[in-house]
Amino acid sequence: MDAQLEGLKYDANGMIPAIVQDHATGEVLMMAWMNRESLAKTAETGKTHFYSRSRGKLWLKGETSGHVQTVKSIATDCDKDTLLIKVEQAGAACHDGYYSCFYREYQPKSDWKVVGRKVFEPEKVYR
Amino acid sequence: MDAQLEGLKYDANGMIPAIVQDHATGEVLMMAWMNRESLAKTAETGKTHFYSRSRGKLWLKGETSGHVQTVKSIATDCDKDTLLIKVEQAGAACHDGYYSCFYREYQPKSDWKVVGRKVFEPEKVYR
Repeated sequence: MDAQLEGLKYDANGMIPAIVQDHATGEVLMMAWMNRESLAKTAETGKTHFYSRSRGKLWLKGETSGHVQTVKSIATDCDKDTLLIKVEQAGAACHDGYYSCFYREYQPKSDWKVVGRKVFEPEKVYR
Repeated sequence: MDAQLEGLKYDANGMIPAIVQDHATGEVLMMAWMNRESLAKTAETGKTHFYSRSRGKLWLKGETSGHVQTVKSIATDCDKDTLLIKVEQAGAACHDGYYSCFYREYQPKSDWKVVGRKVFEPEKVYR
């Protein structure tokens, strides 16, 4: 693996959080975890790959839905323990059908309000 | 604590990651961790508070530098396990003096390149 990427700070489980942002609009799309292998694969292929801690496996974002993310840049923070990846998003980032996973906003003394824009119907994409 | 905020998914250590974004420019400024107490304090006061896992204490962002973040909105994602907080940033988010903590960009076959804009000299702010 590239020394730059090896030099990042992975947590005790070998993971680093990756924030994914739309390179054109600046919308934050999602946050997911990468291990060294998924990050190396992301850098090599130009498509985001993550590591699912619940399923214990590497996944290509969009492998089922076709909603892949094409990498425009990879940045890290002052502590080198978080990534910010700017992408071009095909379709939508969220499996609930919204363009961004952050589609719910806090409303004091009320309940989470859906503010995101819905792009597709999940039941038509995931069978 | 507010039922909305209590209903989020905190990890085994009672933590949830919070992405902080500039509400005006869309720049992602930082990622830090909150526990229930720091999130409740953030919602109540309108200033971001985090929990330092290394120092084991709650902190007000900007308590030393004056570079506080005024909350404009709090969103959560489809899994309710990550927060996206839009803020108005006073000064700069990064203690290294850059406006955003994500000031270094990956350069294939080279090294991290500083691409962020420097706003202040850390040695003049932190004595």
